[in-house]
Amino acid sequence: MKPLGHQSARFPNWVTRYESAMIVVGVVGPFATLPQIFKLYVSHSQHAPGQSLTTWALYALLSVLWFIYGILEKKSAIWLGNGISGILNFLMVVGILLQAGLTF
Amino acid sequence: MKPLGHQSARFPNWVTRYESAMIVVGVVGPFATLPQIFKLYVSHSQHAPGQSLTTWALYALLSVLWFIYGILEKKSAIWLGNGISGILNFLMVVGILLQAGLTF
Repeated sequence: MKPLGHQSARFPNWVTRYESAMIVVGVVGPFATLPQIFKLYVSHSQHAPGQSLTTWALYALLSVLWFIYGILEKKSAIWLGNGISGILNFLMVVGILLQAGLTF
Repeated sequence: MKPLGHQSARFPNWVTRYESAMIVVGVVGPFATLPQIFKLYVSHSQHAPGQSLTTWALYALLSVLWFIYGILEKKSAIWLGNGISGILNFLMVVGILLQAGLTF
């Protein structure tokens, strides 16, 4: 546990609880991508050209960088969440390439 | 600066440099969403029904939670990046509602 700053020192339990809760948010949050994956692969494949390959490829790359950051900072909310995000973002990239081909 | 753990204590400069670089990644990274916003609003509006309102609304909500986490942890890479992400994700939500109406 790092030293707490002046404003959070008054609420150490609150900060610790929020950090613990963010481990759940960090792990559950990335699954927010699932409806988008379902639309791309299953229900709305005809709209795949509207997906940005640039955006999702960058998201996938950023997930990897944040995964490493989370490992270095020993913040499981960050590395675990971004590990899951990385996989789901990669699925978006593959889906766009399969359904729409090369696009921006 | 929090105390460094056993494995990163061998590479304190490397860890510090990576953390500094992630401030840039944290600020520039969220702009990865811009091509998707351009496709939704400008070039591929007819494919808006393929965008998941659930995904982007959850992304917007998650950005707010991570913004607070970044403030509490005093990690500018996290709060600044998620502040920018929150605005861009909110623009996606608005764009989907405008172009496709209520969808999942």
